[in-house]
Amino acid sequence: MGDNAGMSTAIRMVGFDADDTLWKSEDYYRAAEAEFRRIVGGYVDLSDLGGRLYEVEKRNLAVFGYGAKGMVLSMVEAAIEITEGRIDAADIHRIVSLGRDLLLHPVEVLPGIPAAVDAVAERWQVVLITKGDLFHQEAKVRASGLAERFQRIEVVSEKDAMTYARLLREFGIQPAEFVMVGNSLRSDIAPVLELGGSGVHVPYHVTWAHEAEHDVDATHARLRQVGDASGIVAAVADLAFGNG
Amino acid sequence: MGDNAGMSTAIRMVGFDADDTLWKSEDYYRAAEAEFRRIVGGYVDLSDLGGRLYEVEKRNLAVFGYGAKGMVLSMVEAAIEITEGRIDAADIHRIVSLGRDLLLHPVEVLPGIPAAVDAVAERWQVVLITKGDLFHQEAKVRASGLAERFQRIEVVSEKDAMTYARLLREFGIQPAEFVMVGNSLRSDIAPVLELGGSGVHVPYHVTWAHEAEHDVDATHARLRQVGDASGIVAAVADLAFGNG
Repeated sequence: MGDNAGMSTAIRMVGFDADDTLWKSEDYYRAAEAEFRRIVGGYVDLSDLGGRLYEVEKRNLAVFGYGAKGMVLSMVEAAIEITEGRIDAADIHRIVSLGRDLLLHPVEVLPGIPAAVDAVAERWQVVLITKGDLFHQEAKVRASGLAERFQRIEVVSEKDAMTYARLLREFGIQPAEFVMVGNSLRSDIAPVLELGGSGVHVPYHVTWAHEAEHDVDATHARLRQVGDASGIVAAVADLAFGNG
Repeated sequence: MGDNAGMSTAIRMVGFDADDTLWKSEDYYRAAEAEFRRIVGGYVDLSDLGGRLYEVEKRNLAVFGYGAKGMVLSMVEAAIEITEGRIDAADIHRIVSLGRDLLLHPVEVLPGIPAAVDAVAERWQVVLITKGDLFHQEAKVRASGLAERFQRIEVVSEKDAMTYARLLREFGIQPAEFVMVGNSLRSDIAPVLELGGSGVHVPYHVTWAHEAEHDVDATHARLRQVGDASGIVAAVADLAFGNG
């Protein structure tokens, strides 16, 4: 339906997000945050320690950017601020170790993803576009065993319309020829729709507060939503041929 | 001289390193390290605090990668280890603030660089290839005012032969058509010579211990060394046409 009803749109490339689309990620951040609350909770009695941490993280995004290292630096800062300097060095060391664990967590590919990427790759070019820490993202791509499936792997500092426009220019692809698959309406879907591309939204069971801030019309003609990886290829085909 | 004496090598692209080639960087890290020694020196009497920090940094490179955020996390860890947990939270906060300052330091373009890049760009494609933290490097590229001069800006996690080979493939350039300009023999010159490309070495007055570990023959036929930015275009021309 919508603006491509009844006609074939020449989709040539499908981009996949990585964290919480190809593999588990947010769960590890949630676990680290729970441990942070446990450590800092030994010093202060605050019901909203998670909220205080998010405040510091958000304030620091402009300096640290996304990713585990920035999150840990924010945790260290927040812990010192919240405890008014009473936290001892051993507990700060434990917080830094949470960061090390985050950077070294096993990469658990989500069910059905290898088959879904293979099915999409049979008909379209596939690329991986992920946001965050370059070093950590590259390590996860290697550990996932999925790297060989993608023609290009791009780690970007922000997923906004400008970034997608630059990448598509480098790929030689028009926005109308591009579908982005991901779990974040804010980062994976909204900027691509804005450029004139299409999106397949695959929600994940947890979403970071920052990614939950968006303004996407769920009934957009170039947007499809699927329950899990098994629905991806049909959704892309529907966007391409209107026969899904 | 050497393997291109008397004949024109079809140089098509020149890559520039960024930190300590286009702008000052290592000076800020040195200043942060001096401040770290001052803070930790309040707890312990160690003549080699810098050496202890470098040990922790080197151990952490495989987990944190290059860049200011990883350095600060290593500083926090090293401070706790060296003081055996006696360092107080206020001093750890000061160490985290050193990291924030590192990420926000002004970008001071080195003398002669804008003119040198412009002169090279008149005859060859120019790209920027820099290693480290994606978010920080992009911020410095923006602040430098040099971004528009480069056809492509690539932030990579490691500058080894594999990375340069991938980039040149993406650019559609053969190694023999490529010259890399930079201050680090280890990161900018050795891997490019290995692939069959050429290098222009522009030494900086300070070099991080890690970058000083290399094995480059200073008399290599496809290597030129210049004293500062004013020598770059002649060195590239010499590599291209043998008339420098």
